[in-house]
Amino acid sequence: MTDKHIGFIGLGIMGQPMATHLINAGYDLTVYDLFLARTEPLVALGARAAGSCRELAAVSDVVITMVPDSPDAEAAYLGENGVLAGVRADTLLIDMSTISPVTAMDIAKQAAKLGCPMLDAPVSGGDVGAKNATLSIMVGGDAAAFDRARPILERMGTPTLCGQSGAGQTVKACNQIQVALNYLGMSEALVLGAKAGVDPAVIIQVLSKGLAQSRVMDQRGQRVIHGDFAPGFRSRFHYKDLHIILETARAFGCSLPGTALAFELFAAMQANDMGDLDHSALIRIIEMLSHTEARSQG
Amino acid sequence: MTDKHIGFIGLGIMGQPMATHLINAGYDLTVYDLFLARTEPLVALGARAAGSCRELAAVSDVVITMVPDSPDAEAAYLGENGVLAGVRADTLLIDMSTISPVTAMDIAKQAAKLGCPMLDAPVSGGDVGAKNATLSIMVGGDAAAFDRARPILERMGTPTLCGQSGAGQTVKACNQIQVALNYLGMSEALVLGAKAGVDPAVIIQVLSKGLAQSRVMDQRGQRVIHGDFAPGFRSRFHYKDLHIILETARAFGCSLPGTALAFELFAAMQANDMGDLDHSALIRIIEMLSHTEARSQG
Repeated sequence: MTDKHIGFIGLGIMGQPMATHLINAGYDLTVYDLFLARTEPLVALGARAAGSCRELAAVSDVVITMVPDSPDAEAAYLGENGVLAGVRADTLLIDMSTISPVTAMDIAKQAAKLGCPMLDAPVSGGDVGAKNATLSIMVGGDAAAFDRARPILERMGTPTLCGQSGAGQTVKACNQIQVALNYLGMSEALVLGAKAGVDPAVIIQVLSKGLAQSRVMDQRGQRVIHGDFAPGFRSRFHYKDLHIILETARAFGCSLPGTALAFELFAAMQANDMGDLDHSALIRIIEMLSHTEARSQG
Repeated sequence: MTDKHIGFIGLGIMGQPMATHLINAGYDLTVYDLFLARTEPLVALGARAAGSCRELAAVSDVVITMVPDSPDAEAAYLGENGVLAGVRADTLLIDMSTISPVTAMDIAKQAAKLGCPMLDAPVSGGDVGAKNATLSIMVGGDAAAFDRARPILERMGTPTLCGQSGAGQTVKACNQIQVALNYLGMSEALVLGAKAGVDPAVIIQVLSKGLAQSRVMDQRGQRVIHGDFAPGFRSRFHYKDLHIILETARAFGCSLPGTALAFELFAAMQANDMGDLDHSALIRIIEMLSHTEARSQG
């Protein structure tokens, strides 16, 4: 095992099970989190806890980060006690957080100056995918770095090389746009149907057999019409992603009217205390607008 | 065969093959279209051409209509020489046009006064579904009328009883909302990706394996990124459907912000001479907004 020593930064609901898979696969792990208590379950499995990202980077062949947002990734890599302050040349850097493609490209450029190849590798599949090691991993960067990262990433899910630096984050952004608008379509369809007196279960049954079918409807339709909005993927994370996406659209000179509307409706979810509900709870905003509930009796 | 005599009104791109299936199944057909020439292929197969909807209704056990829009359906049923002016009690009326659920319920009420059961039975599946008799048929009305109509409808596709009068049109409306917003999501995802320099083929490949998957992406994604917008389902028909849907939303006291945005973007397609392109050409409006093209080289 060439890259035996892995440093893992960010041990939240996603990072915790991902790091655990790497320990179980025989990698030698050093871990870091702003909240020291989060390192304990991994230390119990044999990991060492580092005092900073800088200290972690100095003893790692590969550094993986899984943090909430662009500023957190910037702090982890570029901060005074960050990864780039301690890293040796040729250490492979893999940021698996969902952040702005622009930020991802910027950090990768600074890493390259130190001789460190870097990949952006955001995931979809949520905490269930993290636990089951079935994440879809969207990777941007050089093919050589991708080949080096592959055996590690395959312990956590299925990696796909999407293009050069930033391409992983871009494809993740595309994914979040499509999912948001598929949910918006489902929400408006079910609300119109409910107002017109049609059983939402019939609507899902008929639509899912035709051109209107989508995986969000297949996976979440039944739960939505029975009022079950337990996450899953919390709406506040999708809201954060849509915010990043619109900033990215600005950076690339791109106009996304549907995404902008979805962002505003996700903002309404946050304003109405729905941040910890599943993102499918978007329908509750459309229900509010139309003063109705699209629930099935069945 | 109790309902041997069928009157079929509206022999356009959909009605023509649908009526042909009924002749081939052994039904005795009388046909009518505003354009006399459209009756000729069916007369050649053994149908009789009537001089008006009224005359057609007088000799039919079952009347089927397949016309473009709500005013056409109103004219066919309620006009001076319309179906209700000539119909006998107990004649089964089936409107397979896509019209407003409110108009559908109104015509059905007037038919009921004459002792005629009526079903709204709009379809999805397009001209290919009509030719192959694989239409998805969304039916609103009484269960008894549905049972009576079923052997006829099954010659054209798969009927599903969705609820009382108007429910078929409502579910069709829901279908068109969901399809429009799935296309909007795909369009914005591909355009952002293209602006950020990612191959659209990679975006479709990754998204279709995850939560973002939709049948419109599966069926049309490859054609869209190669610039093939041959219909399929012409955008001007989807535009018409969205117009009906927003009027229906007004009638039922319903606010549908995503559908309203989709309607405006479909209006832009009509303004830009894209009415006869497939509805997937919605991406060309998003491309215009961002001054780019999301095309694959592969």
